[in-house]
Amino acid sequence: MASIFSKIVAGEIPSYKCAEDENYYAFLDINPVNAGHTLVIPKHEVNYIFDLESEEYAGLWQFAKKVAKALKAAVPCERIGVAVLGLEVPHCHIHLIPINTEGDMNFKNKKEVPAEQMAAIADKVLEEFAKL
Amino acid sequence: MASIFSKIVAGEIPSYKCAEDENYYAFLDINPVNAGHTLVIPKHEVNYIFDLESEEYAGLWQFAKKVAKALKAAVPCERIGVAVLGLEVPHCHIHLIPINTEGDMNFKNKKEVPAEQMAAIADKVLEEFAKL
Repeated sequence: MASIFSKIVAGEIPSYKCAEDENYYAFLDINPVNAGHTLVIPKHEVNYIFDLESEEYAGLWQFAKKVAKALKAAVPCERIGVAVLGLEVPHCHIHLIPINTEGDMNFKNKKEVPAEQMAAIADKVLEEFAKL
Repeated sequence: MASIFSKIVAGEIPSYKCAEDENYYAFLDINPVNAGHTLVIPKHEVNYIFDLESEEYAGLWQFAKKVAKALKAAVPCERIGVAVLGLEVPHCHIHLIPINTEGDMNFKNKKEVPAEQMAAIADKVLEEFAKL
């Protein structure tokens, strides 16, 4: 069965898309720990990030670097934090989170970000990504 | 001035070494959030991970993948979590953390791991890394 993320990539489930290329996709986490919290995934469904083949693994991290650059331009912050946990959805994903303090990356603290703000952030990241 | 991590690489400050090659170094975090909590760094001192040049950035993630594999073999766990925050030491570092639940990666929960256990874990990771 396709993962929820594969359904997002296929457009069967809507998402706030931030970036896309042939092999990778980025969209806003709908339960963000901070505004701009983005998920970066390979379109190819693999559960554990360290099980990705060398080339796909390298491509995913290069794509994430571009997304992080676009995200930092779109959402002013000290830096973009990175996390990979992967205990919930069996489709590997990199969390990119705009942070100013360590507490901004606490997965127990979810933030309420209104839908209009989510849409505005995603559009801005898409725009910045297109410039890279 | 050399960062504390550069001093560790140079051997001026002791560390529980887990893995090393020409360009990268891995060692146990002395304030672990879980047993086996490892830091992976480029020897070349760069503050923000996304400022690394493409080749060095790719090499760092490939090295981290090998360390994660060795770490998972050394410390039984569900998977190896990944985090990059970088707000404290201005020398970029990837946290690799053996996790079974999301709570195992909470940076506010430090674990007491006795020195003998730290040494035993590091030796085991070194041994597993050498097999890869």
